Amino acid sequence: MSRARRLASFEALLADRGFAAAVISERRALFYFTGTAQPCNLVVVPGARPMLFARRALDWVRGEVEDVEVREGATFAAVSEHLAEDVPANGTVGLELDALPARIARSAERAVAPRPVQNVSPLVYDLRMVKDAGELDAIRSAAELFRDAHGAMLEHVRPGIAEHELSAEVARAVRRAGHEGVVFYRRWDAWLQPEGIVTSGENLARISGHAMSVTGVGLSSSMPWGASRRRLEPGDGVYLDLGLNLAGYHADAARTYVVGEATEEQERLFAAVLRCFDETVAAIRPGLPSAELYRVARRVIDEEGLSGFFQGYPPQQGEYIGHGLGLELDEPPTLWPHESVPLAPGMALAIEPKIISPAFGAFGVEETVVVTEEGATIVGPIERRLFSVS
Amino acid sequence: MSRARRLASFEALLADRGFAAAVISERRALFYFTGTAQPCNLVVVPGARPMLFARRALDWVRGEVEDVEVREGATFAAVSEHLAEDVPANGTVGLELDALPARIARSAERAVAPRPVQNVSPLVYDLRMVKDAGELDAIRSAAELFRDAHGAMLEHVRPGIAEHELSAEVARAVRRAGHEGVVFYRRWDAWLQPEGIVTSGENLARISGHAMSVTGVGLSSSMPWGASRRRLEPGDGVYLDLGLNLAGYHADAARTYVVGEATEEQERLFAAVLRCFDETVAAIRPGLPSAELYRVARRVIDEEGLSGFFQGYPPQQGEYIGHGLGLELDEPPTLWPHESVPLAPGMALAIEPKIISPAFGAFGVEETVVVTEEGATIVGPIERRLFSVS
Repeated sequence: MSRARRLASFEALLADRGFAAAVISERRALFYFTGTAQPCNLVVVPGARPMLFARRALDWVRGEVEDVEVREGATFAAVSEHLAEDVPANGTVGLELDALPARIARSAERAVAPRPVQNVSPLVYDLRMVKDAGELDAIRSAAELFRDAHGAMLEHVRPGIAEHELSAEVARAVRRAGHEGVVFYRRWDAWLQPEGIVTSGENLARISGHAMSVTGVGLSSSMPWGASRRRLEPGDGVYLDLGLNLAGYHADAARTYVVGEATEEQERLFAAVLRCFDETVAAIRPGLPSAELYRVARRVIDEEGLSGFFQGYPPQQGEYIGHGLGLELDEPPTLWPHESVPLAPGMALAIEPKIISPAFGAFGVEETVVVTEEGATIVGPIERRLFSVS
Repeated sequence: MSRARRLASFEALLADRGFAAAVISERRALFYFTGTAQPCNLVVVPGARPMLFARRALDWVRGEVEDVEVREGATFAAVSEHLAEDVPANGTVGLELDALPARIARSAERAVAPRPVQNVSPLVYDLRMVKDAGELDAIRSAAELFRDAHGAMLEHVRPGIAEHELSAEVARAVRRAGHEGVVFYRRWDAWLQPEGIVTSGENLARISGHAMSVTGVGLSSSMPWGASRRRLEPGDGVYLDLGLNLAGYHADAARTYVVGEATEEQERLFAAVLRCFDETVAAIRPGLPSAELYRVARRVIDEEGLSGFFQGYPPQQGEYIGHGLGLELDEPPTLWPHESVPLAPGMALAIEPKIISPAFGAFGVEETVVVTEEGATIVGPIERRLFSVS
């Protein structure tokens, strides 16, 4: 039923924005609308029955989908024949130009010609921004996986273990607990290990070009983020930031650890970041412009005198406090000053303040948060403090 | 030096095919030509000095690259300004249309306008098809990781363990051994867990739509391949097929296991597949049309009376015997009847015969093979036999 509602909302949105039809090919979107992530093309025409063209494994696809008819069809030619019935030659067809590689998009454009083509990706992301009850349950379940990751950290953080060995223990723990083993990621040509970022010591403040965040340095220049071969030493800070994909829905969480007893200075810096997290989450309420959250976070960090280290340090300093998430680890809205949407009940957001400096390493905390009618609920099983591990 | 040679070959190829310039943005190709996988755009103009525009982390990028100049430049606007110096308004610019999402390709096209744009991806793959000595060393080192995966299988394959628990042990073992934790994959919207496919029993013959191979069924419909929650039973077949990414280069290997003692019938079926593997590899020599390898494999399988099960069963039966690999797990050439290139020394190929049936499960063996002046060398540390584990 919920997928039928999603399709109905999509049809209404398409009609409202002047689309005569849309073709959905990206697997996360296919799963959202139909329940299958097998290679297919979904044709949506406002007012007509949605039609799913499957490349292979038709019985498998039929067993997974709800409320759509399934036909065999490996290429856009099948899509095109189907459109001929319902869509006039001047009707705009939406393609996922955010996701389709250019060569495939060109072939799709030729198949639907002479109809004009427009990018339908933003509409799909708009719809997905507010989650329904089933999706929120899925995100809450995904957040529980952090318990296993954290358990592996408490067991294995000790002097002498290498970052990638620690990373291996986290990978094992979350996969055993049901992690899909892949983190889906919106950005082009971006990839993340399923156990996320595990990094330590001086690597905490080495910021790779892929994100202004705690990135780690990776095992080789072929993959410049994540764990390295660096071995932990007493007194080191250790950071764990990972995307938790359970049954297709992601939660995002991070914690900071210290090898041995944390110093007063380390506790003070972490407390400042935690205050930033707490005040940002406390500000969440329906109707608040999303960009406000960055301002709240920034105000706290300014008061703490840590602005020069917030989300990096010059020249690599990010202006953000978090992001939406769901079928992908990083979805609209980005919580930054450069765009704003009104917060709404059912949005799932990752809130992730961090301070980073070569002088002290990195301190951060990240949780997945659901916007409610009254404010926000933090999902995730682990307390938010600096963990001294010895 | 070798990267300078690659760039020189690319310049010659561009000039030969009528390109005035090319812009390389995809990370595997950037790493191949420059040594960095940070987010950058590389501008190559035949006869001019290659120029790398880096989005961020400039010092990091400068520490990694060889033989190219690095400038700051986050967008295609910087690329466009640079082209203005060297490339006339009617000079064709190559963009990676296989890799760039359509929206980004459109923005790149606007930036280089009025110059015409053509897809440069096939040229890059052509160059990468024959590996140099350093690349072959990297692939040989990657192949060694299978020792760790196999060790985890021998230790943990037993009645009662779930596929995803076994998968977790393989993931831990290869990550500890240096696996990058991500498998790079040429096909759009395809993803594979870093520990590959771990599947068993009746799941051996359930073929997901993503590839005509032993796919497993996955943990949920959001990710329909890889390990499931099925628990191993005595007598089960178990399959492990994984991409091994070490320092950016991939090897590919697979083995078949039996929980307990293999039956005579299981040994007979495996022996037929192994004969197919052996004869296919024995046929490899420089100059042989690559499509010939499928014919050799197919002839052996026909002789064994197993044609109805080769690479799947109707209606999902694949016509292939393997594929190239290197910076991605799956690169040209595809070894199938539908295309052919002359085999050449330095090519790295995965050879992967399999027979699949609901009646007997699946039996297969896969190795990475390097084409030499005399024939072929199999790389990989583990013997090729059916493993009875008890």
